[in-house]
Amino acid sequence: MKYPKYLQVLIEQFQMFPGVGKKSAERFALYTLNHTKPSQTEAFAEALVKLHETIKPCQSCGFFTDQDVCEICKDSTRDKTQILVVEEAKDVIVFENTHVYHGLYHVLNGAISPSEGIGPESINLKSLFERLKNEDHLELIIATNLSEAGETTALYIKSILEKTNIKITRIGYGLPAGGNIAYADEITLNKALEGRKDY
Amino acid sequence: MKYPKYLQVLIEQFQMFPGVGKKSAERFALYTLNHTKPSQTEAFAEALVKLHETIKPCQSCGFFTDQDVCEICKDSTRDKTQILVVEEAKDVIVFENTHVYHGLYHVLNGAISPSEGIGPESINLKSLFERLKNEDHLELIIATNLSEAGETTALYIKSILEKTNIKITRIGYGLPAGGNIAYADEITLNKALEGRKDY
Repeated sequence: MKYPKYLQVLIEQFQMFPGVGKKSAERFALYTLNHTKPSQTEAFAEALVKLHETIKPCQSCGFFTDQDVCEICKDSTRDKTQILVVEEAKDVIVFENTHVYHGLYHVLNGAISPSEGIGPESINLKSLFERLKNEDHLELIIATNLSEAGETTALYIKSILEKTNIKITRIGYGLPAGGNIAYADEITLNKALEGRKDY
Repeated sequence: MKYPKYLQVLIEQFQMFPGVGKKSAERFALYTLNHTKPSQTEAFAEALVKLHETIKPCQSCGFFTDQDVCEICKDSTRDKTQILVVEEAKDVIVFENTHVYHGLYHVLNGAISPSEGIGPESINLKSLFERLKNEDHLELIIATNLSEAGETTALYIKSILEKTNIKITRIGYGLPAGGNIAYADEITLNKALEGRKDY
């Protein structure tokens, strides 16, 4: 059906989000129309406009911030002897939400994938090696994804840093919580076997 | 974790939507940050701001429009001998999406509920009766919800129009598509029995 112009625009905008189909987008748009005051939609609109203006990568780790250096890098209570390397900024959030890791991060903003033309120089590796230059007593935890690009990136980092004093570790891969062996794929089971421990 | 200001505002805004929890709101906000250009967020923001400014109830049926009279009321191909009465504007959309009804609508914007202090004068009934004043050969299809307020509203409309020539009907209530009798509630089964037909 034909909606009034700005309702239609809103529905289209909501549909861009992953997992949001036409019906959900309609529900969100109607909810906005019926349950918000102009002051709220203005605050919502302001955040959308200011988002790109104010948020940029942290100069140190690449995570997003509205300052020069992000909250995590500035936090003096953080363990500065650990750097966890992730592919995307959103991976930082996932680790932060677990509340078990208290070190620093480095966001690569991608992973090496020669088949897609993404070489080491296309991702934030230069800034990582720069950051590690004068470091000692440091553990670099590689938490790239369990994919070809993630593996390639991990191996590349290892090859470059092998001769330094930096301790390189990689997070465990294997059967996830609630995982059922019957439904696990080959790569996961392979990694689970590789990662077995004395029991 | 502590997000940059406008990312945090966006997450809070997305959380207002029905069915959107913190995790989904974070995903939507990060998606906006990573996958939109400033031109798109500006269009999104404009729609949010203009929504309340431009959209108002149709002067005839109460459905929303950005003109005086809505697209449905203006559509000359519509069957003007049928008016379907619904509680909310979004109910119109549900009927429109089925593509089986081609008459007009009347949006009550609520239902009579004495226990909540909502009387006939609190909803768009005056405009309905005004609309029907000089009408003849007209079918009024009552499609209020199957709730106490919906039933009260249907009965009230019937009582007012009983002595006119207007044909009053009510949509069918009963077991829904895919409905399982074992799980159906008492009211639904009661309505299904009432609505039985020769077979």
